[in-house]
Amino acid sequence: MTATAAGKRAEPAPHEGDDPCPIGAASEALFSRWTSHVLWTLQHEGRMRFGDLRARIPGVTPKVLAARLRKLERDGLVTRTYHREMPPRVEYEATDLARTLTPVFRMLAQWSERHLDAVRTARSEFDARDDR
Amino acid sequence: MTATAAGKRAEPAPHEGDDPCPIGAASEALFSRWTSHVLWTLQHEGRMRFGDLRARIPGVTPKVLAARLRKLERDGLVTRTYHREMPPRVEYEATDLARTLTPVFRMLAQWSERHLDAVRTARSEFDARDDR
Repeated sequence: MTATAAGKRAEPAPHEGDDPCPIGAASEALFSRWTSHVLWTLQHEGRMRFGDLRARIPGVTPKVLAARLRKLERDGLVTRTYHREMPPRVEYEATDLARTLTPVFRMLAQWSERHLDAVRTARSEFDARDDR
Repeated sequence: MTATAAGKRAEPAPHEGDDPCPIGAASEALFSRWTSHVLWTLQHEGRMRFGDLRARIPGVTPKVLAARLRKLERDGLVTRTYHREMPPRVEYEATDLARTLTPVFRMLAQWSERHLDAVRTARSEFDARDDR
């Protein structure tokens, strides 16, 4: 198994060389803020225009959403189709490669369902501590 | 299934309210930069001092690593133990809750092994495009 993030040209990879962590590159690719949310929405609701996607992701700014979509397009997880109409129309769609993530997302959803309450409890206890 | 990130007090949750994405909160908790790497290392190499952990994560600054460890401690995924010795010694260890992530991490590693080459190819093609 290769664990490096070689091939990234635009931004230096944080997990280069003799990185012992085999999920570093994948988690960088997938789990920057909003990224999983965008993929989840496109996979479950199909092809979508920018404005509709934005409406489904509360709190994201247009600038950030555009940057995330561009990153996903570069990673081969989303396609961007420009329709030459008047006015022009641009649609985003999850790729077959993105669909290979379904079991990963499903497992993460399952983990959340089982353990997120424990995370929340830990946070409350941490915030209530005197010594923090 | 509840998908909100309620309970976060220190920072406003990005996925509040009627969020349709059930993995948003989990991916926020787990996959900020370096986080999965820290957990992976602590789970595979056991309890560790700050300096040793830092040596195993190339590229991370002490400030960022300290912040990530604090976040993981708050989330109940890492414990921090202070030994009153001379000089004092602080050790970090993955919790039982962190160990519930093992199948998630394993699936992510498997996904990387199978599909990361396709991501890299997509990146090269994107970077070579004229219209980007």
